[in-house]
Amino acid sequence: MCSGYRCEFIMQEFLMCTAISFSTKDHYFGRNLDLEYSYQESVTITPRNYPFIFRKTENMNSHYAMIGMAYVVEDYPLYYDAVNEKGLGMAGLSFEGNACYYEEVPEKENVSPFEFIPYILGQCACVEDAEEVLLKINVMKEDFRSDLPLSPLHWMISDKEKSIVVETLSGGMRVYPNPTGVLTNNPPFRQQLFGLNNYMSLSKEMPVNSFSKNIPLKVYSKGMGAIGLPGDLSSVSRFVRAVFAKENSVCGKGEMESVGQFFHILGAVEQQKGLVHIVREKENTWGSNDVSLGENEDYEITIYSSCCNSEKGIYYYKTYDNSQITAVDMYKENLDGQHVVSYPLLTGQQVKWQNR
Amino acid sequence: MCSGYRCEFIMQEFLMCTAISFSTKDHYFGRNLDLEYSYQESVTITPRNYPFIFRKTENMNSHYAMIGMAYVVEDYPLYYDAVNEKGLGMAGLSFEGNACYYEEVPEKENVSPFEFIPYILGQCACVEDAEEVLLKINVMKEDFRSDLPLSPLHWMISDKEKSIVVETLSGGMRVYPNPTGVLTNNPPFRQQLFGLNNYMSLSKEMPVNSFSKNIPLKVYSKGMGAIGLPGDLSSVSRFVRAVFAKENSVCGKGEMESVGQFFHILGAVEQQKGLVHIVREKENTWGSNDVSLGENEDYEITIYSSCCNSEKGIYYYKTYDNSQITAVDMYKENLDGQHVVSYPLLTGQQVKWQNR
Amino acid sequence: MCSGYRCEFIMQEFLMCTAISFSTKDHYFGRNLDLEYSYQESVTITPRNYPFIFRKTENMNSHYAMIGMAYVVEDYPLYYDAVNEKGLGMAGLSFEGNACYYEEVPEKENVSPFEFIPYILGQCACVEDAEEVLLKINVMKEDFRSDLPLSPLHWMISDKEKSIVVETLSGGMRVYPNPTGVLTNNPPFRQQLFGLNNYMSLSKEMPVNSFSKNIPLKVYSKGMGAIGLPGDLSSVSRFVRAVFAKENSVCGKGEMESVGQFFHILGAVEQQKGLVHIVREKENTWGSNDVSLGENEDYEITIYSSCCNSEKGIYYYKTYDNSQITAVDMYKENLDGQHVVSYPLLTGQQVKWQNR
Amino acid sequence: MCSGYRCEFIMQEFLMCTAISFSTKDHYFGRNLDLEYSYQESVTITPRNYPFIFRKTENMNSHYAMIGMAYVVEDYPLYYDAVNEKGLGMAGLSFEGNACYYEEVPEKENVSPFEFIPYILGQCACVEDAEEVLLKINVMKEDFRSDLPLSPLHWMISDKEKSIVVETLSGGMRVYPNPTGVLTNNPPFRQQLFGLNNYMSLSKEMPVNSFSKNIPLKVYSKGMGAIGLPGDLSSVSRFVRAVFAKENSVCGKGEMESVGQFFHILGAVEQQKGLVHIVREKENTWGSNDVSLGENEDYEITIYSSCCNSEKGIYYYKTYDNSQITAVDMYKENLDGQHVVSYPLLTGQQVKWQNR
Repeated sequence: MCSGYRCEFIMQEFLMCTAISFSTKDHYFGRNLDLEYSYQESVTITPRNYPFIFRKTENMNSHYAMIGMAYVVEDYPLYYDAVNEKGLGMAGLSFEGNACYYEEVPEKENVSPFEFIPYILGQCACVEDAEEVLLKINVMKEDFRSDLPLSPLHWMISDKEKSIVVETLSGGMRVYPNPTGVLTNNPPFRQQLFGLNNYMSLSKEMPVNSFSKNIPLKVYSKGMGAIGLPGDLSSVSRFVRAVFAKENSVCGKGEMESVGQFFHILGAVEQQKGLVHIVREKENTWGSNDVSLGENEDYEITIYSSCCNSEKGIYYYKTYDNSQITAVDMYKENLDGQHVVSYPLLTGQQVKWQNR
Repeated sequence: MCSGYRCEFIMQEFLMCTAISFSTKDHYFGRNLDLEYSYQESVTITPRNYPFIFRKTENMNSHYAMIGMAYVVEDYPLYYDAVNEKGLGMAGLSFEGNACYYEEVPEKENVSPFEFIPYILGQCACVEDAEEVLLKINVMKEDFRSDLPLSPLHWMISDKEKSIVVETLSGGMRVYPNPTGVLTNNPPFRQQLFGLNNYMSLSKEMPVNSFSKNIPLKVYSKGMGAIGLPGDLSSVSRFVRAVFAKENSVCGKGEMESVGQFFHILGAVEQQKGLVHIVREKENTWGSNDVSLGENEDYEITIYSSCCNSEKGIYYYKTYDNSQITAVDMYKENLDGQHVVSYPLLTGQQVKWQNR
Repeated sequence: MCSGYRCEFIMQEFLMCTAISFSTKDHYFGRNLDLEYSYQESVTITPRNYPFIFRKTENMNSHYAMIGMAYVVEDYPLYYDAVNEKGLGMAGLSFEGNACYYEEVPEKENVSPFEFIPYILGQCACVEDAEEVLLKINVMKEDFRSDLPLSPLHWMISDKEKSIVVETLSGGMRVYPNPTGVLTNNPPFRQQLFGLNNYMSLSKEMPVNSFSKNIPLKVYSKGMGAIGLPGDLSSVSRFVRAVFAKENSVCGKGEMESVGQFFHILGAVEQQKGLVHIVREKENTWGSNDVSLGENEDYEITIYSSCCNSEKGIYYYKTYDNSQITAVDMYKENLDGQHVVSYPLLTGQQVKWQNR
Repeated sequence: MCSGYRCEFIMQEFLMCTAISFSTKDHYFGRNLDLEYSYQESVTITPRNYPFIFRKTENMNSHYAMIGMAYVVEDYPLYYDAVNEKGLGMAGLSFEGNACYYEEVPEKENVSPFEFIPYILGQCACVEDAEEVLLKINVMKEDFRSDLPLSPLHWMISDKEKSIVVETLSGGMRVYPNPTGVLTNNPPFRQQLFGLNNYMSLSKEMPVNSFSKNIPLKVYSKGMGAIGLPGDLSSVSRFVRAVFAKENSVCGKGEMESVGQFFHILGAVEQQKGLVHIVREKENTWGSNDVSLGENEDYEITIYSSCCNSEKGIYYYKTYDNSQITAVDMYKENLDGQHVVSYPLLTGQQVKWQNR
């Protein structure tokens, strides 16, 4: 499928992720980004009057402000995930082998994958808005730069009420409602959703013996009601585990409780260094200068976990090496400005000493 | 088994835990304590000259200093886990239905479970020392107070080189070498260890098709080599998952990398609030004053995660609500003192703001 | 999907099955039919000159002879599975909730599901022939009789060299190559095939310890290399298990060895009475006279297992109550005749006594 | 353990099995014997006056008659499994690495493993009788012949009412009640029984969605209530699957229905040729003359399946190559005789032709 298209990608094919949309009193939207090494991503605010120059469709000189994680190149924010001032969130996740980007189509709005998040969040206030805009879009293959080829992605778009998934398959673009508010990677979303049926009987409750009424089986540990939940780090298993965690999650309505719980849910699908070994011949295609190659870059880890309060415009994050929550508040910036503002990630462990 | 013995326990029967011993350049020893609510545990340093008064065996007026998590009652540190100045660590973990405490035996050192950690860490510099001392011990049933009955426990004792597990079964006390350096709860340790055989073929590597040479199966996600790893929160599944995470863990030798990775490993078996529902009629037997009962106390959570650098005497911890690492340094205290020093847990979320 | 179409079906929605295509020296094609009770199916030979009267497409007065299992109504053989004299086999299996039959389309050959097997086997000598014919077919919704409504099916068509699956989905008919030579039921075949990727590392060989090089894990039983193989009777689990059994099967080339092994493979996915409980309010729509309702009819069982040597035209079968292999030889009949010949199933247990 | 004892065994260490005790109106006792090749076992009746010569304990010149599967050497029936005229059944199953046979003990009845079945069935009418006799027995290591060394076994003893398991562990002989009526191989029985707790929530019923109340999960196949049941052929997985099949089995009370269903239950744990590959350097120690080594002897198969009506003394069996049930009736022999009577297994496929 996607014949003739070079299979090299902005974020590389080895990127894995989990995105979550979650509501208590407010709405929270965030994700794990799982990769072997970090690009120079930063928490990036795009104010209303930063001009989005699009390749094949009309530019946006004025639009909703947004905050999210981005790799900023030539002043252009290549967003991995973001939330706009209306509370709409959107994240791109690796979809290798299934994502298909199309030739330009004259009667459509031709939007490249790297323009997709700005294009949607710039003009849509809610999922319904996005659904309408999506009808007019053709997701075309157009690299950001020849040395920054596209990566294969699918997307989750969420507001407080609902989530949708956008997939550009070989048969055309598909938009699905996402009752789980969770997205990982392969296989296509409908198949992921179908797979949950197999876990239907898992429960947060103690199991009851339905195996045999003659054998006195007993519960010997709490948590046995969820035996069968997969524990590995593949995309299917992370999907099932993240949905189970999110759907059974219990927490208070306060900001700190909600944010804390959000990170605990993401923690259930975190990638610990060493558990997924990457053996790879091919060169890194995204400019060796941008990448800090260390001795452990062959193991997938959760580079960062994010949780954005989509109503307050606060972007919280943790990194693999810094478990303290760091936060950036969109409304502390001039949202009517014209320049992208970026905060580099604080990645050093912040230890609080009680007796030093 | 254990006939005639009241089945009420200090830390209650619903306590679940995971303990880990882990070495990079230094040795680290810590655990998750999983419970529905917190007692007033604190990071507690017992200096060398604090007199340990034992019920049936000779008191210790001078002993190794130690640091760990304890509930301090009447100036007595009821340790959940601790490490002494020689680098020996010991933790007690729930062992409901299998732990058996014995009648007093005249020719033995009669040590109550609540005295067990001080008794061992007070005099043993390494696991070998502990093994010798264990030969003389009878773990007898003797409550700390009538309103603080014993809890059913088994123990892991670790130094940098090796770990052992101590279980007081109905057939007598057993001491096992623990090649995994991991302990959770039921069933007895030998059975847990045996169970790992079933997961032998799991791997951090990509799977290879051995199912059928005629069918072109493909890897569609990283992490598929560990499909089959259990993802629920029961004691058996946590054991398998923690061992897999620890054994495949990769990290640098530095203090921050090691401590960070230790918490990531514990994170793989963390209990997220809501996923394990506790339905319980029975009263809390451990003084209602000490317990803050909230509306969510029916869900098991990881109250705290700890990681003690057993060589430097630094006790790091996180709590469910505070993801920042907090630390207490034993050597900042007067270790020749006579008084127990306690640092209450910092449980409030510490958010670092980048633009406020 | 399939809106407006009555959801009642010839073989009822509760039918489950497994079909297999298998070659040693000869080619064998057969299936398990899993149901709660038996219709009056019989081994049925349709000779070359039996006139097939089709509803909307041209009749076939002369065609390939075929043998298979059929419910014969008004002299019309409603085949469940059959093989023709050229060695082409075809079987229909339940596909509830996904099968969609279409409105009549003028420019196509409009073939009803109940005509599909005769239509294909009557004129195609191999899978390639069938693929061509399929291009012209529209699978239309047309009941055999108002009291014998259609059942939702998908089909496997196999010759000695290859197998294909035909599915009439809401988006149109799909034809897939089937490298496994196995078909069960839901979900659609592509999804079933994809699911096999998750079992890639299962093996007939002893497992090797890739879990941890530090822990001396051991093989304590033969067969541990396939731990993770699902053992329940759902359609997905039967698919995985049947493919594993077929692909790893070893047997001699002789007729008896081959037929015996074929039944052993089908045995791996047999439905034992009692393991799948059917609770059902709705009436049986297929003529109560035809059905022997007993007290145990609420449990799914493997009514019959069949294995047809597609080159010799011999149809072997076993029934749930008769484990002896019974056989009917197509070439013992007059294949140039005009009349369908049926052999009722021998369902009584045939015990061979050695000393009576 | 068992130090100093040669690890060579009568039936070889690669033997795997499943034994079942099952009651409808009558009581049925039988097993699968899983091996790579067949010894010259035969259905063997030992009449009441055949003198059992024991090595270290008093001979039995008169005893209960018995029927079962045995390898008869020098007129001595080495029983794999048998049932006596009182309806007591006993079977030996491989227990490699755990079975320990002891030095002679003067004050005990010293019975070798190869004498164990005759010794028990010769004098015990029911399980209670056996329990009493077991109290006096020492299972000593004494080979039948130097070229026929002992195999490591454990045993199930069953009457219509109950079953027990006998294991000679390194710590001594253990006798356990067996509420499942099923025995396979490793690990020790108590551990096998404990393991069933993990499957507590499996069911013959349709699953109900307890995973998430917000996600509309659906049952897409019958049998999904037992998802999680293991499908491989290791001893643990066979145990779980056989117990699930037996405990949920439904069948009529008649002889043919009961016998048929018994074989269906055994069928759920049958070993299909090719699925378990044996790689082995060591020589066969049991006389090459007795063994027909073919080209496929490297794959474990279910050599025979047996089902003995323990009340009527009828021994039914099937072999891997002969799916017809063959039967031998103990009461057709002179049970007051002095000579062992053997019926060789009918191993050729018996096909019933309907039109030849």
